[in-house]
Amino acid sequence: MPLVERLCIIGVGLIGGSLSLALKQAGAVGSVIGVGRSAANLDDALRLGVIDEASHDAASAVESADMVVLAVPVGTTQAVCEQIRDHLNADAVLTDVGSVKGDVVAQVEAAFGEAPANFVPGHPIAGTEKSGAAAAFPTLYEGRRVLLTPLAHTAETALDRVRRMWETAGAEVETMEVAHHDAVLAATSHLPHMLAFGLVDRLARMEDSGEIFRYAAGGFRDFTRIASSDPVMWRDICMHNREALLAAMAQFEEELAELRRAIDAGDGERLFEIFTRAREARDGFTG
Amino acid sequence: MPLVERLCIIGVGLIGGSLSLALKQAGAVGSVIGVGRSAANLDDALRLGVIDEASHDAASAVESADMVVLAVPVGTTQAVCEQIRDHLNADAVLTDVGSVKGDVVAQVEAAFGEAPANFVPGHPIAGTEKSGAAAAFPTLYEGRRVLLTPLAHTAETALDRVRRMWETAGAEVETMEVAHHDAVLAATSHLPHMLAFGLVDRLARMEDSGEIFRYAAGGFRDFTRIASSDPVMWRDICMHNREALLAAMAQFEEELAELRRAIDAGDGERLFEIFTRAREARDGFTG
Repeated sequence: MPLVERLCIIGVGLIGGSLSLALKQAGAVGSVIGVGRSAANLDDALRLGVIDEASHDAASAVESADMVVLAVPVGTTQAVCEQIRDHLNADAVLTDVGSVKGDVVAQVEAAFGEAPANFVPGHPIAGTEKSGAAAAFPTLYEGRRVLLTPLAHTAETALDRVRRMWETAGAEVETMEVAHHDAVLAATSHLPHMLAFGLVDRLARMEDSGEIFRYAAGGFRDFTRIASSDPVMWRDICMHNREALLAAMAQFEEELAELRRAIDAGDGERLFEIFTRAREARDGFTG
Repeated sequence: MPLVERLCIIGVGLIGGSLSLALKQAGAVGSVIGVGRSAANLDDALRLGVIDEASHDAASAVESADMVVLAVPVGTTQAVCEQIRDHLNADAVLTDVGSVKGDVVAQVEAAFGEAPANFVPGHPIAGTEKSGAAAAFPTLYEGRRVLLTPLAHTAETALDRVRRMWETAGAEVETMEVAHHDAVLAATSHLPHMLAFGLVDRLARMEDSGEIFRYAAGGFRDFTRIASSDPVMWRDICMHNREALLAAMAQFEEELAELRRAIDAGDGERLFEIFTRAREARDGFTG
């Protein structure tokens, strides 16, 4: 018997589609039904073997599934949960792939009354600039981290099934508290995106922006790469991880003010100390 | 007759050494004398053919030169100029490679009374993480930009010689005003370095920094690469491009505050607008 007998992926994009392909390749899934709104995308998914069956109706699609993966934009979580609420199998495990967890849990709670014991909030830290089922590939999760944030009443068996599913897809799975997840991601991903978007936007708004970008050297290209990310996804992350992101931004603004004061005062010793600590930290974590 | 008969490089590191090697490879220089404090570095430079002759004494070394390149830390410009002031040939051209230009010009003026007509401030936008004569290589400037910032009374002949020297080394040469150079570099290079240093430093100072860096994903690595830059060089840039950098930081802080307000207010439309403009600008300039 495969790890997952019937997988239902709601939202067959890069993330959901790649999970399906990875499980198929590992022989760990019996069959896969994909749910989506776009017929063209579902056709791609069927044609490329990402899914075995396609549906526009989440409610009926989950009825046969023992594993349901929500891979929809975070903001639509509650609406989708309300559709499937009365159709889930008693034993089915429900998980998601959202980049923020506190808000997803709140939406699940709003839809279900309380979060089901078989619901396991999850976040695979993986992705490319591409999207859609046609961009999916089975090795997306190899060596990548998946963070699971079980709640106090989450069933051990459900957590274990989701963990094994991601491990089968090649990922390293870790668990942490919901709030901690959101704070860590705000600091290491959401804040850096704000800095990159903000910097490029500020330069773009300057009168001589064409010239300014012309003189931007190599380091600038690396530094601003993440400003090419999907504006819709990042708008949603900002809306749905608001508290943690605002806290991270406030902390960074303090740091920047400290740097500014040191530059203003010509305090070379302080600047050297900050730059050295940063360089050592970075060289340390990148090995 | 080669473009440069006798080149004097004061400070034989990656930048000065690579210029020498490029001119030698092009057959564009008669001989090269290198000036430095470190005997070990000068020995490397001689052994590797970066220079033909070595000296610890800038004053006597410039006497025979028709082209003098200052490739020393920006903060030592005035002291070096005071040493060579009374020993330069009347026809010798003096140029520099500093990352900031207003402060260099001020130091040259302080040393000479007024900047010599044969002084051409310059800034090759090139470099690697390595330093020292042993790191020099002849193709460092191929396709890279060199910005020259001649003063009102800079001699056309001097400007022309420096331009041809850099073009011979493979660079694209452009001229701009001193203050404009410092503002453009503050926005596209110095400010991004402050953001990268500041972000990594802030994370490093958090209690759970080890864990935080562990979850930092791919984009974070690119984004913070420039935080691995030399703390001494960046301390000096902060000290010597103080005004322009402070102005760029103040502008960025406004942008960040604007983003924070939009996130706080849940203004998705505004966020989408900012992120879209940034993505389009970045995709535009990186081609």
